[in-house]
Amino acid sequence: MLRFATTNEGKLVEAREYLADVVGELAQFDYDYLEIQSDDLSEIAAHGAREAHEAAGEPVIVDDSGLFIDAIGGFPGPYSSYVDDTLGIERVSELARAEEDRRARFRAVVAYCDSDALETFEGVVPGEIVAPRGDGGFGYDPIFEHDGTTFAEMARAEKNALSHRGRALAKLADWLADEPARREERVS
Amino acid sequence: MLRFATTNEGKLVEAREYLADVVGELAQFDYDYLEIQSDDLSEIAAHGAREAHEAAGEPVIVDDSGLFIDAIGGFPGPYSSYVDDTLGIERVSELARAEEDRRARFRAVVAYCDSDALETFEGVVPGEIVAPRGDGGFGYDPIFEHDGTTFAEMARAEKNALSHRGRALAKLADWLADEPARREERVS
Repeated sequence: MLRFATTNEGKLVEAREYLADVVGELAQFDYDYLEIQSDDLSEIAAHGAREAHEAAGEPVIVDDSGLFIDAIGGFPGPYSSYVDDTLGIERVSELARAEEDRRARFRAVVAYCDSDALETFEGVVPGEIVAPRGDGGFGYDPIFEHDGTTFAEMARAEKNALSHRGRALAKLADWLADEPARREERVS
Repeated sequence: MLRFATTNEGKLVEAREYLADVVGELAQFDYDYLEIQSDDLSEIAAHGAREAHEAAGEPVIVDDSGLFIDAIGGFPGPYSSYVDDTLGIERVSELARAEEDRRARFRAVVAYCDSDALETFEGVVPGEIVAPRGDGGFGYDPIFEHDGTTFAEMARAEKNALSHRGRALAKLADWLADEPARREERVS
């Protein structure tokens, strides 16, 4: 059975929506794997997936995500969660709005690991940093505007349909579906 | 022989000054161990020391350090190097100077690991964030003022005499010196 190593039940629910057709049941693996420091989300997720797979003894996925602001070197990037907890999104918004170029992207990587394979799948959504608007979502959603609407102003289904994590999960679902023989062996 | 796992030769030279009396020769171990994500420098350094010790097969020290600004939750903390590379010290200075309380501290942890022991030693220097001044040092030194002088305005010997890393190394030296029997066994 495929397991999602996450302590976040919201992520689990979202992943089940994308993967139900190809993996059947997706179980939670409530395991706090180590995250390494790296500028590269794929490297962080791949390392986490390997460690979680070793702990679980079954096929595992993990995810990592972040907000990358173009004009300030991709900040806060892989450390988005830490920066949200310390600086906070208001200050991050002000930093970006002090720049002429306010473009940013949400990135997510889902990493899959079993005893044969370690694969990563990336989803990206482009947007622009604005002053906070909207009450929905979490994290940086209120300051991330896509096509005129912030992620915090969108209905949950609307956000999930275009989210970075959804795009990464969709790529994973395609990969799993394209390799039925390997999948049978792994996910049964 | 004790090895310092670092790719930074400046740090090696500084560590030799503190440890020469107790360990004799201090060799460089040019090994890029994984740094984990954590709010706690001691945890990052301890994990790195354990990994570096396993790779070296000999007693090893590693260090980790960062700038912690009180009013903004310790930011940039363990991610000081990443934040220096992306936001840069000018923006960090502006963030701190927008606060009434501009107090900060430089923290360093040196972790020692051999086949029996894993110990961490912390050094802290208090200061205040100011607009950049001075051409010496590196990293956040120009915006960190201690007793009216920024670390970048100090002579190298003056800075080393009171630096966070020096204080951590001095504690390690005391620990090594206080346990001559264990030290003989390990560092010979």
